Amino acid sequence: MAEESVPVLCYEERPEGPVVVLLDQTRLPAREVERVCTDVPALVEAIRSLAVRGAPLLGLAGGYGVALAAARGFDVADAAEQLAQARPTAVNLAYGARRVQAAYRAATRAGAGPEAAAVRALAEARALHREDAEASDRIAEYGSALLDELVPGGGLRILTHCNTGSLVSGGKGTALGIVKAVHRAGELRRLWVDETRPLLQGVRLTAYEAAREGMAYSVLVDGAAGSLFAAGEVDAVLVGADRIAADGSVANKVGTYPLAVLAQYHGVPFVVAAPVTTVDLETEAGGDIEVEQRPGHEVTEIPWVREPGTGPESGGGPSLAPVGAQAYNPAFDVTPSSLVTAVVTDQGVAFPVTAESMAALCSTSRKRTSGSANGMMNA
Amino acid sequence: MAEESVPVLCYEERPEGPVVVLLDQTRLPAREVERVCTDVPALVEAIRSLAVRGAPLLGLAGGYGVALAAARGFDVADAAEQLAQARPTAVNLAYGARRVQAAYRAATRAGAGPEAAAVRALAEARALHREDAEASDRIAEYGSALLDELVPGGGLRILTHCNTGSLVSGGKGTALGIVKAVHRAGELRRLWVDETRPLLQGVRLTAYEAAREGMAYSVLVDGAAGSLFAAGEVDAVLVGADRIAADGSVANKVGTYPLAVLAQYHGVPFVVAAPVTTVDLETEAGGDIEVEQRPGHEVTEIPWVREPGTGPESGGGPSLAPVGAQAYNPAFDVTPSSLVTAVVTDQGVAFPVTAESMAALCSTSRKRTSGSANGMMNA
Repeated sequence: MAEESVPVLCYEERPEGPVVVLLDQTRLPAREVERVCTDVPALVEAIRSLAVRGAPLLGLAGGYGVALAAARGFDVADAAEQLAQARPTAVNLAYGARRVQAAYRAATRAGAGPEAAAVRALAEARALHREDAEASDRIAEYGSALLDELVPGGGLRILTHCNTGSLVSGGKGTALGIVKAVHRAGELRRLWVDETRPLLQGVRLTAYEAAREGMAYSVLVDGAAGSLFAAGEVDAVLVGADRIAADGSVANKVGTYPLAVLAQYHGVPFVVAAPVTTVDLETEAGGDIEVEQRPGHEVTEIPWVREPGTGPESGGGPSLAPVGAQAYNPAFDVTPSSLVTAVVTDQGVAFPVTAESMAALCSTSRKRTSGSANGMMNA
Repeated sequence: MAEESVPVLCYEERPEGPVVVLLDQTRLPAREVERVCTDVPALVEAIRSLAVRGAPLLGLAGGYGVALAAARGFDVADAAEQLAQARPTAVNLAYGARRVQAAYRAATRAGAGPEAAAVRALAEARALHREDAEASDRIAEYGSALLDELVPGGGLRILTHCNTGSLVSGGKGTALGIVKAVHRAGELRRLWVDETRPLLQGVRLTAYEAAREGMAYSVLVDGAAGSLFAAGEVDAVLVGADRIAADGSVANKVGTYPLAVLAQYHGVPFVVAAPVTTVDLETEAGGDIEVEQRPGHEVTEIPWVREPGTGPESGGGPSLAPVGAQAYNPAFDVTPSSLVTAVVTDQGVAFPVTAESMAALCSTSRKRTSGSANGMMNA
């Protein structure tokens, strides 16, 4: 495993034939287990069991899965359908699968045989991967420059929430990608990692990436962030986004909004990082974003005590709460643009965050990246 | 077990002799297990393993423990010493043990035999228990009246943090005691229960009490409170306090301060409830309160997967974080008085919260309750 970045997902030509190899995220951080998928059903099972997760990464899994089916001579349309349906709410998954399927179909229509069309499909999956990695790099570049401006002098103490790194994207990540760039420039004093209840992406996954990068980092329960702000121990908050409305309101992992309110109260910059495709101009304002309510057992049960091979989201652990306890368990919350200092994308930065600055970002992006997906999400 | 209140701790005369009976809090909410202590070492073990916990309740355990030693003819001074040392930071524990020891000694000095002195010791322990229960009742009374004034019209949706009910006091509790009074008056629409990481007192203990009282309640991860405020679903926040400085700043379970900031941002009353003995006039301001840093394993490990009989604080569970992860784990945070709408005590209400209103409360209390403890804490 290279130090440069964790090979979360890749396509390999092996002596026994092509395979999709992925890092099983359900075993992290305790064990780094590779999962080798030789066909689409194996990959679908990996997606369903959350061995591979995170919206942009799911898009790549979908794309490579279709390429794998093509290379192994399976029915490509059927493979794309199975992958697209593996997790019905993951827009990116369907996008990745359909995009590579379209490339395969275009090649056959143009007269290519199955083998040549399979080569074309794989090239398309690799293009998607490359685009995602490049988007990460640009976000990191824009984000570091912004931080230099907002908090001059280096030695940054950055607070983050959830996981927004290599484990959810084809590159270094979004918010965590910026943190990595700051760290590599020798300017990171400490990364504060919210554990991120209920599914603990912070303490499990962000801590794993921070440790691999050799960062100075500390994990904390989500409620302890207030103490850090009060002690003057936070120079900036960096988070990702699942969807950004046209007015610049940001839907992200639950627990983000309280950080934004605390940041404003303490005069600390609150920066959101996401590919520009996360901006959904058809959603006018934050109030229009529908927030998924997740099952209560994620809160009331110990979800990560489980049989081997089942993910931490599968529930069924011992109950913490009394029998019959109700739980309020929204997956995301919405932060109004008035609390967001800046939105960093691969197409530039909206700063300040207004409907106008968001529209400007998107018009740039529509020109430059007309082939990329709408609805790409980052968590 | 009476519906009226959970018998968390009591002294019983049984055919085989006197005993201290307590509800084993490490087994809640899954099982209601009584633990019967026939001597002081058994009680000390129950205190150390956190079967009995919560500052005022520890005071009662200390008091009844000394009374038990006296009744069974053990060395009373030795018993008081053992109990006072069982958990060195629990001021109340030492206070309860010493107070009952003093009553025993006064009786023997006045010429009472061991049996008569033991009767006097038990009377003192029961007086301490009664005082604590009466303080709960007065807090509930003052608190309900205040809520009527702050949020007229009833149908309240109250958010609380940690556990401040019968499980930590000799009566109905402090903040949760007020909620119970509101509920019994038919005015509680819903109790929102923060799970309260890392030790989960909310989802384990407050939910247990809410269920027993038949309240409509929902548990939530601490980070989801922001979504409730944003949705207009919180009419008031009610929390306890571990220590209140002379200027009205409040130290309470970590995660309290972010709720205070959110409450102010949303114009929602933030009310603190505690016995007046929690006010520490010798601590001038919030910044002077020293906050205990707890072991990192409470955050990085699954602390409630454990061998039977060990408490959830004992650690040693499977690790969530990478090996060697550091954790920032303050036990409490401090909320400045500017964010506190009112402080409700058994001696009246400070509203608004200023150094003057706090001093006025305390001067009332010094007159009325000259025999009661300083340093009584509520969590």
